[in-house]
Amino acid sequence: MEVTSPRQETYGPITRGCQWLKALPNKFCDKTMGIARKMKKLGQDDPRRIFHSLKVGLALTLVSLFYYFEPLYDSFGDSAIWAVMTVVLVLEFSVGGTLGKGLNRILATLVAAAMGAGAHRLANLSGRKGEPILTATFVFIIAGIATFIRFLPRVKARYDYGMMIFILTFCMVSVSGYRDDQVLKMAHERFLTILIGCCTSLIVCIFIFPVWIGEDLHNLVAANMGKLANFLEAFGDEYFKVSEDQSNENNMSYLQGYTSVLTSKSSEETMVNFARWEPGHGRFRFRHPWKMYLKVGNLTRDCAYKVEALNSYLNCKIQTPAEIRGKIQGPCKRVSLECSRALKEMASTFRKMVLTRSAVMHIENSKKAAEELKSLLKTNLWEEADLLETIPAASVATLLPEIIGCIEKISEALNELGEAASFRKINATVLPEQQDSIQQDFNTATPMPHCVITMAE
Amino acid sequence: MEVTSPRQETYGPITRGCQWLKALPNKFCDKTMGIARKMKKLGQDDPRRIFHSLKVGLALTLVSLFYYFEPLYDSFGDSAIWAVMTVVLVLEFSVGGTLGKGLNRILATLVAAAMGAGAHRLANLSGRKGEPILTATFVFIIAGIATFIRFLPRVKARYDYGMMIFILTFCMVSVSGYRDDQVLKMAHERFLTILIGCCTSLIVCIFIFPVWIGEDLHNLVAANMGKLANFLEAFGDEYFKVSEDQSNENNMSYLQGYTSVLTSKSSEETMVNFARWEPGHGRFRFRHPWKMYLKVGNLTRDCAYKVEALNSYLNCKIQTPAEIRGKIQGPCKRVSLECSRALKEMASTFRKMVLTRSAVMHIENSKKAAEELKSLLKTNLWEEADLLETIPAASVATLLPEIIGCIEKISEALNELGEAASFRKINATVLPEQQDSIQQDFNTATPMPHCVITMAE
Repeated sequence: MEVTSPRQETYGPITRGCQWLKALPNKFCDKTMGIARKMKKLGQDDPRRIFHSLKVGLALTLVSLFYYFEPLYDSFGDSAIWAVMTVVLVLEFSVGGTLGKGLNRILATLVAAAMGAGAHRLANLSGRKGEPILTATFVFIIAGIATFIRFLPRVKARYDYGMMIFILTFCMVSVSGYRDDQVLKMAHERFLTILIGCCTSLIVCIFIFPVWIGEDLHNLVAANMGKLANFLEAFGDEYFKVSEDQSNENNMSYLQGYTSVLTSKSSEETMVNFARWEPGHGRFRFRHPWKMYLKVGNLTRDCAYKVEALNSYLNCKIQTPAEIRGKIQGPCKRVSLECSRALKEMASTFRKMVLTRSAVMHIENSKKAAEELKSLLKTNLWEEADLLETIPAASVATLLPEIIGCIEKISEALNELGEAASFRKINATVLPEQQDSIQQDFNTATPMPHCVITMAE
Repeated sequence: MEVTSPRQETYGPITRGCQWLKALPNKFCDKTMGIARKMKKLGQDDPRRIFHSLKVGLALTLVSLFYYFEPLYDSFGDSAIWAVMTVVLVLEFSVGGTLGKGLNRILATLVAAAMGAGAHRLANLSGRKGEPILTATFVFIIAGIATFIRFLPRVKARYDYGMMIFILTFCMVSVSGYRDDQVLKMAHERFLTILIGCCTSLIVCIFIFPVWIGEDLHNLVAANMGKLANFLEAFGDEYFKVSEDQSNENNMSYLQGYTSVLTSKSSEETMVNFARWEPGHGRFRFRHPWKMYLKVGNLTRDCAYKVEALNSYLNCKIQTPAEIRGKIQGPCKRVSLECSRALKEMASTFRKMVLTRSAVMHIENSKKAAEELKSLLKTNLWEEADLLETIPAASVATLLPEIIGCIEKISEALNELGEAASFRKINATVLPEQQDSIQQDFNTATPMPHCVITMAE
């Protein structure tokens, strides 16, 4: 998509061609610089990406030693190339991804190699003429069935790679058996080299700067709650601000952080599928209830939909006049702020894997404020006002209590998860040493003095 | 997770073991039957899955002919196995997926084989002792850089598979060159067999019951609009129904169809990435503006968030009394219904790839109804009513006009898309032959007599 100025149009094709050629080096430079900038940012955003790249290089170098050292090469020969292939295909960014693919590959190769050898043996019995026909029939049937099984959602989520490798190995072993009589030797070598490749990948992946996807998922779920909390924290001030000053312009981007929560479903699902392959590590034991993270994620998303509805009132065309809004400002701000605190508390304790009732206090506070708001609305305080103008503020006043319901549901789901994962239980409603950490956990753009004061109460 | 009755607890471990063993065949039968039922449903839901499975079987059988026929085998030898591998790895459900993977594989193999051969040549110059060191260095650097490039979002979306194959082939060619002096022959054979595998996959994929992902995407975007339309169509009746009868129970599931739109973002993105690989087919020419579908999808999703907010008022705890709701029933129902018709019209014409202004009429109608609603709200019609009770209905009354705005945006995006894709232009506002087809396009669970009547007006 090129923008051509009207003047350029008058030039002939040769002149334009020359101009294009002249501009080419500049364009190339710009493009290269752009890519370099993007790559630098990629590395800065998550330095683990650089480590992963180095790890892939290292694993490949390690596995290629099979070719360079005489004694190693003698035992495997050209089959050693399967080890190189395995490393490229199996070594993923996270331990869960690598383990999932590695186990899938090993198991699928084992089963398929055995079945392939069996199929070759069976086909062999029918003589030199019948063998290809029988082998082709086997390949057609087995590949067809296995491909269809790949469509099952549960298989697709966890064993898709394994099914592919199964088809691959089965075809290779049974088909190549027609030319190579040492099928068993081939199947055996292929399996051993794949095992070596998988082990190399796993060792490099787990022992050098491991990336645990489970930990990432845990942090993502907490961060999503934090994003909603950030919105709710800023919402009260933003909605009830009197003057039309634009000083809070940078606050708007801060308010929009929650939008990524709306569309995080698929990435959460992928992460759960990978995390389920991971062994116990750090604070997470083996068989950590990863599936329950999906429930928490879904409830957080439901809350995000409400927040989205709330957000639409910030930029509503018809705005309730400030003096009318002012009448419900107090309890509305309190509900919003207490919801924000509850979410932050939940996110913070969840991140620390602590089971405490400290968020309950904030939920109760917000409920009290919501009751206050309700009784305020019952007094027909806007009797003289225009109904059309009061609706937006009134809608906000009814939406906020609904968010409390959402937060309660999240809190329940977190408790269930905490019980299942045996989180550390602490009975205190507010933990003294936590007050600071809650502040640190979400690097909030604006300081929250009021929040700290209330907590110290 | 087994439910054990209290009586069972008193039995010894051996008795329990026996019981478990006895129950095993039944369990196995249940499990097998369950899987069989699921697989039957998979095939019934989308029979193309069965065809795809057969196609994979066929392609593998075809490509294995290289092993069975003497003249074919003589020209490639054991390298023929790469063709089998390629078919398994490249043949995807859709043409776009297969083409994307195939082109990625061919191009990456070509570049990597050349670079690998070059690296081997360079390393060769440094003598037998220096060669492994130099090769290992090359592998480490190239694999590391290529792995890092895979993190670039644009590369990840479209060329991830190609980058993987690049690393794979480069390592294979450069490393195995140390043992096998015929590197060039190997690289050449590998490239040719991969080409054959890709071509077989493509021919089978395109010429036997092809699945065009672009068409699926086109239908998905239209279906999403239809789902929102279905909700809006039923919403008016559902919200303003007077009696508390539960006869419309089955209507509720029909109302919830829109929820899948909320989370369709990632699948749309994947489909766009695949669709961009597809050549012109049927109604879609090459370079169809697939990327613009993302914009339409995002706007549809924004509309779905509003619909989600609307839906929450259906199950709201505090409900506005029926007599109060009744006062705004007329215009509210009209807005909802006209929005629904506009969306259906847009979905239907979009599906047919027709550019018409027929939805504009419905949008204008809904705007008129919204104006009516607005002036009705201005008359302070609920003066004597409790504010708290009026809020839900009033919120609905303000949300509905917002949906008109969303629909207008979708309509604009559809027009842009239509212009870019050169949709057929029709000037009529309502096409006579379309009236029926609009009904047929969305196999709506409930008949819509009022809708048909108004359209025939």
